[in-house]
Amino acid sequence: MYRTNTCGELRLSDAGKDVTLAGWVQRVRKMGGMTFADIRDRYGITQVVFDNDHNAALTEAANKLGREFVVQVTGKVQERTSKNPKNPTGDIEIIAEELKVLNPSEVPPFTIEDDTDGGDDLRMKYRYLDLRRNPVRRNLELRHRMTMEVRRYLDSKGFLEIETPMLVGSTPEGARDFVVPSRMNPGQFYALPQSPQTLKQLLMVSGIDRYFQIVKCFRDEDLRADRQPEFTQIDCEMSFIEQDDVINLFEGMAKHLFKEIRGIEITEPFIRMPWADAMKYYGSDKPDLRFDMRFVELMDVLKGHGFSVFDNAAYIGGINAKGAAGYTRKQLDALTEYVKRPQIGAKGMVYARVEADGNVKSSVDKFYSQEVLQQLKAAMNAEPGDLILILSGDDVMRTRKQLCELRLEMGRQLGLRDKDKFACLWVVDFPMFEWSDEEQRLMAMHHPFTHPKDEDIPMLDTDPASVRADAYDMVINGVEVGGGSIRIHDAALQAKMFEILGFTPEKAQEQFGFLMNAFKFGAPPHGGLAYGLDRWVSLFAGLDSIRDCIAFPKNNSGRDVMLDAPAHLDPKQLDELCLALVEPQKK
Amino acid sequence: MYRTNTCGELRLSDAGKDVTLAGWVQRVRKMGGMTFADIRDRYGITQVVFDNDHNAALTEAANKLGREFVVQVTGKVQERTSKNPKNPTGDIEIIAEELKVLNPSEVPPFTIEDDTDGGDDLRMKYRYLDLRRNPVRRNLELRHRMTMEVRRYLDSKGFLEIETPMLVGSTPEGARDFVVPSRMNPGQFYALPQSPQTLKQLLMVSGIDRYFQIVKCFRDEDLRADRQPEFTQIDCEMSFIEQDDVINLFEGMAKHLFKEIRGIEITEPFIRMPWADAMKYYGSDKPDLRFDMRFVELMDVLKGHGFSVFDNAAYIGGINAKGAAGYTRKQLDALTEYVKRPQIGAKGMVYARVEADGNVKSSVDKFYSQEVLQQLKAAMNAEPGDLILILSGDDVMRTRKQLCELRLEMGRQLGLRDKDKFACLWVVDFPMFEWSDEEQRLMAMHHPFTHPKDEDIPMLDTDPASVRADAYDMVINGVEVGGGSIRIHDAALQAKMFEILGFTPEKAQEQFGFLMNAFKFGAPPHGGLAYGLDRWVSLFAGLDSIRDCIAFPKNNSGRDVMLDAPAHLDPKQLDELCLALVEPQKK
Repeated sequence: MYRTNTCGELRLSDAGKDVTLAGWVQRVRKMGGMTFADIRDRYGITQVVFDNDHNAALTEAANKLGREFVVQVTGKVQERTSKNPKNPTGDIEIIAEELKVLNPSEVPPFTIEDDTDGGDDLRMKYRYLDLRRNPVRRNLELRHRMTMEVRRYLDSKGFLEIETPMLVGSTPEGARDFVVPSRMNPGQFYALPQSPQTLKQLLMVSGIDRYFQIVKCFRDEDLRADRQPEFTQIDCEMSFIEQDDVINLFEGMAKHLFKEIRGIEITEPFIRMPWADAMKYYGSDKPDLRFDMRFVELMDVLKGHGFSVFDNAAYIGGINAKGAAGYTRKQLDALTEYVKRPQIGAKGMVYARVEADGNVKSSVDKFYSQEVLQQLKAAMNAEPGDLILILSGDDVMRTRKQLCELRLEMGRQLGLRDKDKFACLWVVDFPMFEWSDEEQRLMAMHHPFTHPKDEDIPMLDTDPASVRADAYDMVINGVEVGGGSIRIHDAALQAKMFEILGFTPEKAQEQFGFLMNAFKFGAPPHGGLAYGLDRWVSLFAGLDSIRDCIAFPKNNSGRDVMLDAPAHLDPKQLDELCLALVEPQKK
Repeated sequence: MYRTNTCGELRLSDAGKDVTLAGWVQRVRKMGGMTFADIRDRYGITQVVFDNDHNAALTEAANKLGREFVVQVTGKVQERTSKNPKNPTGDIEIIAEELKVLNPSEVPPFTIEDDTDGGDDLRMKYRYLDLRRNPVRRNLELRHRMTMEVRRYLDSKGFLEIETPMLVGSTPEGARDFVVPSRMNPGQFYALPQSPQTLKQLLMVSGIDRYFQIVKCFRDEDLRADRQPEFTQIDCEMSFIEQDDVINLFEGMAKHLFKEIRGIEITEPFIRMPWADAMKYYGSDKPDLRFDMRFVELMDVLKGHGFSVFDNAAYIGGINAKGAAGYTRKQLDALTEYVKRPQIGAKGMVYARVEADGNVKSSVDKFYSQEVLQQLKAAMNAEPGDLILILSGDDVMRTRKQLCELRLEMGRQLGLRDKDKFACLWVVDFPMFEWSDEEQRLMAMHHPFTHPKDEDIPMLDTDPASVRADAYDMVINGVEVGGGSIRIHDAALQAKMFEILGFTPEKAQEQFGFLMNAFKFGAPPHGGLAYGLDRWVSLFAGLDSIRDCIAFPKNNSGRDVMLDAPAHLDPKQLDELCLALVEPQKK
């Protein structure tokens, strides 16, 4: 037996016991004839004392311990004279009687401390050492607890977790697939699933009724900051339900998680905001509702006063940054620069301060009388001390998105985006389609199986772009943590949908034939949703990136720098797969 | 709302209630002016009554329902006059007031009944219909409950479930990898993990202390009857433990599962059988202990009496088939043919019956006196009515394996392999290495990280073939459901192991460098095991194949015939991956 107790377990009530601990050397301090070693494991840190007077050989051995050595220590628990209230084991220490080095360690390339001196690249290469650090390990513990609670909740609601295959067929529609050559079927490939969407729909056809799976999904996309080629979904589907049934059940799950994981009891129902409102008031389909600062449209107030920028605009909108009238010219210039960055793309920004006496002072005073500015103040519901920020543009949606970025930045600057505060909502009534400039056709906003709103079905023939879908996203703090829809279970409606999306019947059959065939044998009404587990864990952990809640993440080139994967294959492996490499230049 | 209740829920106490059910039409029977429809969902079957006198139009609609139509029925619950005690809802029926066809169905290609008329191929192609059948769906429900209980148990023991990556590096050692071309790193490939073995060892280096994961693994092997290219492991690892700690904890898990899933309380500890004994007494490293029929070695008794087959044999062993003396000549000939099949490869079989008077009558009477045959009877502990079956051969291990097949076949014929009886044991003390004729070198029997028994370490230099490992398998009813080992955490010992296995230091570094480097920074003593979930579920479900406990399995050519995967790629996809196909002939 390697240990009687963990390093996080002993308390004052254990004083006098003979114990054996095992763990890593966090630090060793020599103070006169005494040597103190802190021994760490996943559960905590315990102080071990070596007394030169009591056992000189043992103390000498302790003095030779290096950081991250793995040791086993036997001794007696005693009360400490100088206690450390910050450490749960801080009331006691172990008087060492035996010390065994189970494994030495080279000096680690960065410090194993909560705040480490290691840079990102080094920590990724030595991820196994980075995971020893409390903040990183805690993220994995949180992830474990979240998945346990998700399973507990869904199991209690009659959901069955069913594993769907990882080696499936490739569907060129949508994002790019990772593919897997089949040796037994030369020239043919499997694909790794982007999601188990069609398989879970088949499970509904099977009568499984309530399905879930916490499952790896894969997308071969050019990686952005917060994307990983493999990611984890909480994937769910139900039969004989309507949109409200899905939303109510999964709102219940969210509340369960908030309570169990974060200790936050949410009693109010989540807001359900139509997509059109989300775009109108927040310029985003995932508004951050931790703070207000809703958009006010100012076309009526500000047009027709000779300021050509506004007079020619298709959209003018403002936000009220409460109490920010004290912003300096320099801060305002920086904000203007912020919205003019190419990623955001605004042409400029107009601001107006409400002064202590109620007068409004704006950056476009020469065009607007105080009377109009007072109308602006009233429209913005602004008070003395407030700062009004206004953007305009010739494309309504684009300008709203720019104003959204400004709103989020102001929320950040004013400290309104507290990571320990959570604002949840459902965004509903998404449009069924969106126009693709690239493809010059309507594309499914969600996916081709999404059910249109019953009352909008007649518009499929006359005005498909205005059709809304039975689709819904769950948004927390401006992050889309999950989304789903009611699916089409009617073969005729599905055929019409493929037609609108520009699929020939042959192409639809080729790509989704197995699903359409299945639907001929009694498909129940069904729908569901999928959560991005990595994002949700990050949100609960207060992380800026999903990377730190993943044990072994990949970098922005899709590389695992610790494993050094991907890598070149043995030529024999390629031969067996009937594959040859082509020089990238030849592409 | 589609339903007030499921089809498995209503009881006599619900009589008088107005309810709405939704589900599939199992069957429709017309009896005079009444039409009875059985409506099925995952939860059960409820009888619905349509009365022509009461509502002729509704009854006419019901008469048009086909099998597997999806319907919604509203009506009143009433007590049945002729109850069906076999059906939990058999005390009641629904008097239909409304009927809505939610989706019609084509006639399914096979009957959706417990005993279907569909052949294997058809059921695989229409797997979504096969899953509607109770016996198949129940396997998935069992699988769900098993994984829930595994997680509950391991969570209660402080294990963290941590997801390891699916896109890793390829290791040519061992079975063949499935590989995944990387578009972002042209010419390079990821591999899908054969198991998270090295990653879980890195997690131990990280101080995770107790890890588990229920995880998909992949092996590109030529498929045998009971193999799938993707399969699921319950993968576990622990630090600061010895073999007994691992065995005790996971024996606890097995007992927990037996109790929760099968209602079987096992109070006795599992037998721990050394590998050498398993081979000696059962000719197998996974003996089926549901029945005795242990091997008895008969060299002393049967050699030297002029029967050249035995006189020249390196091994003679017998089993006692209790009470089988009544086997006819025809049955015995069939047994002889059975062991002579090429898959088993015995040269012949000798039998001896113990007759009612105690005399022994054998197939080689001309070589053996009754006196010797009585010695045989005594050695075999045989009584009147018993049948002794004997094999011999010039290779001890090969003959034992043949005798093992005979033993299992006799167990089957005598009804001793009851699927509802379970015999669990640990096989321990496996050899460290096995000789590979193909590679002409010692190979790791488990894997290269397996720790040798401390007392056998000196033999690594002198007699490596005799070294035993700290490796263990859990066996139930002759099936290896799991196995594992204590791992090497000492860099010098690991280097010696690679040397014995014929790795140059360079090759070891190339393939396992990341692990060996990690071990330089304080690896704790650790070990673990992995269970084959598919096999364990099959065993609990009493299935002959793992296929029926997998929602969407692949066939023996690695194809998913429902999805028609793998398939040819769009040439654009190959171009993007910098790959070209090579004709199989050119291999």
